[in-house]
Amino acid sequence: MGDGVVNARTKGGDMDHRYDVPPESPYALLADDDVRAWYAFMKVQLRLRYEMNRQLRDDSGISLTDYDVLVALTSERTGAMTITDLAVRIGAERSRVSHQVQRMAGDTLLSLQSSPDDRRATHVRLTDHGRELLARASPGHIAFIRSVFFDALSPDQAIILAGAFESIYELLIENGTLPRPTDHP
Amino acid sequence: MGDGVVNARTKGGDMDHRYDVPPESPYALLADDDVRAWYAFMKVQLRLRYEMNRQLRDDSGISLTDYDVLVALTSERTGAMTITDLAVRIGAERSRVSHQVQRMAGDTLLSLQSSPDDRRATHVRLTDHGRELLARASPGHIAFIRSVFFDALSPDQAIILAGAFESIYELLIENGTLPRPTDHP
Repeated sequence: MGDGVVNARTKGGDMDHRYDVPPESPYALLADDDVRAWYAFMKVQLRLRYEMNRQLRDDSGISLTDYDVLVALTSERTGAMTITDLAVRIGAERSRVSHQVQRMAGDTLLSLQSSPDDRRATHVRLTDHGRELLARASPGHIAFIRSVFFDALSPDQAIILAGAFESIYELLIENGTLPRPTDHP
Repeated sequence: MGDGVVNARTKGGDMDHRYDVPPESPYALLADDDVRAWYAFMKVQLRLRYEMNRQLRDDSGISLTDYDVLVALTSERTGAMTITDLAVRIGAERSRVSHQVQRMAGDTLLSLQSSPDDRRATHVRLTDHGRELLARASPGHIAFIRSVFFDALSPDQAIILAGAFESIYELLIENGTLPRPTDHP
């Protein structure tokens, strides 16, 4: 971000971090340090979702995608949001989320209700059962993400990583297609 | 990582970064700077996959999960690997990958062949069609990840992020269940 070293972002700048990127790989088009960052990020991203899903299933009988929905619903003081807002919040297609919440409502983890203001809008709400499952699953989930994520980071690294991903998020809002969620954080 | 500031990882350490975490949220259990890092990472992670998938589909008619498979195959000089190795590499269930490569073989993006050494093992190989699609899709994909990811990072941030995610990956190997892929990077 225009800090005077941006010209270092060229191929072959740092011999210590050369990757033997196959010429067919799309990442042969990136600068070497960017390749290193992208590989590391993508490898973590793919494997972390797999392992978080496995831990939640094994220990609490809930999938990561269902857990993501329960967590998203806690962010509203009312414990409810529309399917459209939920889809924007978790970054997923509305149709997929619509099927998912119907299945989860069948498992009594949440309830669905037509909006009094707009009959086309459906409100998704946490049930007591959903809250209980979330409360039961969370200590193990948090212990797991500590053991694979935060234990690798110094507090300073955590702060730098937070700032970097907040900037990336702003670019995703600017250059992507999904609107910014209305609720925070 | 024992650098003398690790005791700063306590709740309420930095008032500038306090998050109003709902008491029901699992993240109420984390230190404030860790909450900030986790929210930022998860928000990016969910939305980035959505937007990368949309860009690839719109511009090149391929989904992100299929693109991930084609990219993974370029990492072998031979352009081939077993379904088991492929699943470990992309961090996915073997059964899901098995269905996916059968569908992709039907679209002639790759070919499947029983191993001459072990009839239970199936080798997955890039076809010319798969290589062509990868070559056609990649410039747009790379331009997109530049615009939403690397444009947010200074070169120094990219290097710190690379180091942090390499450390996280090692913990994921150590504390997770999937084996380390045999191929690199």
